Amino acid sequence: MLQMYDLAGADPQLRFSPYCWRTRFALAHKGLPVETLPWRFTEKSRLPPGQEKVPVLLDGPRVVGDSWAIADHLERTYPDRPSLFAGEGGQALARFVNAWADTIVLPAIFRMIVADIPRCLAPQDLDYFRVSREARLGMTLEQAQADRAQRLEVFRALLAPVRRVLETHDWLGGDRPSYADHILAGTLMWPRCVSDFTLLVAGDPVSAWFSRALDLYDGLGRSARTSSME
Amino acid sequence: MLQMYDLAGADPQLRFSPYCWRTRFALAHKGLPVETLPWRFTEKSRLPPGQEKVPVLLDGPRVVGDSWAIADHLERTYPDRPSLFAGEGGQALARFVNAWADTIVLPAIFRMIVADIPRCLAPQDLDYFRVSREARLGMTLEQAQADRAQRLEVFRALLAPVRRVLETHDWLGGDRPSYADHILAGTLMWPRCVSDFTLLVAGDPVSAWFSRALDLYDGLGRSARTSSME
Repeated sequence: MLQMYDLAGADPQLRFSPYCWRTRFALAHKGLPVETLPWRFTEKSRLPPGQEKVPVLLDGPRVVGDSWAIADHLERTYPDRPSLFAGEGGQALARFVNAWADTIVLPAIFRMIVADIPRCLAPQDLDYFRVSREARLGMTLEQAQADRAQRLEVFRALLAPVRRVLETHDWLGGDRPSYADHILAGTLMWPRCVSDFTLLVAGDPVSAWFSRALDLYDGLGRSARTSSME
Repeated sequence: MLQMYDLAGADPQLRFSPYCWRTRFALAHKGLPVETLPWRFTEKSRLPPGQEKVPVLLDGPRVVGDSWAIADHLERTYPDRPSLFAGEGGQALARFVNAWADTIVLPAIFRMIVADIPRCLAPQDLDYFRVSREARLGMTLEQAQADRAQRLEVFRALLAPVRRVLETHDWLGGDRPSYADHILAGTLMWPRCVSDFTLLVAGDPVSAWFSRALDLYDGLGRSARTSSME
């Protein structure tokens, strides 16, 4: 069976990396069972040589790091299983969706949930997370998140292209979910798992789409542990 | 030969619609010669029945309006010519790129060039353009554009996903331009043709990409009339 290192919180069942979730959905899309190995930020030495971040996939002798490289690996290695990209053009533009999620969506979410993350973390990760993220932000986690209510409108506006596509199709992939859907759904698993802050409101087509994504693969996303669960 | 109605200025050779340019590039990509029929905003009655906007493509007995519908028509009607989408997945995600261009890129450009447009327009279009756009904006064209220097940084930031893709590939389509490239290049033909305001600076990978796009198809974009030409 395939294995992957998957970012975990104090509760080893709490998995909240937006990149690891892209890989979880991609593996499920391909129908490939996976054993997930809980991993903490400060356990870099536990990863295979050359790897510093998760997800890392172990596929027999192959070690593949980085969610995009993993999706590419899965598509090439398991061509007879359902396609993640539906062709060369789909893979090229999934790269654009990945870049859009990483440069536009993730940073916007970051500023609305970053101070909620420490209460999910394993004790050994607390200092690392706060020091590295506060250096990146140039302020405390709490300051970064203080105006999140004002950021909501901007965040919802930047999802306009998704909303536009959903006017005519159920998925970014068209009639069926593709890796582009997993990129965005994986990204939204991050706030779902670590924060009670409401990013999407009922009535937003993006909210309805995310609900469909949570139900995929026997409810893989919906059944995942969140910080608000007892 | 195919024909298309194409938005023109006072100078009938000045063609500046971001949607018509998407279609021009798509036709060139397919290697299909086209006769472009200059059309002004106030000539709705000249269009075929049921059509109110350009581009409108006349392909034998077929009348197709809307740049997305035209791209879809060309791909289905001329499958043996170079593909615009490189597969079903590519077409699905080109829809996302189209939606992104329409909801994010176009509105940002609009606020930086809208007051430059009237001096390009045919006399009969001047009132229509000003009245309809000022109603949409809730202010004068000049007021809408007054802070454009401050808007530049935001505009350049929203192109971050393009820049990220260009770190590893020459085109949004990967190794070759696809309709996704034409969507963005067509969108950028609009400010190029009507305004002297500099949106992209040398050294920006997006600027280098646009330069490559201008050179495609024997310099179709680069040789196009602009308002700054005598």
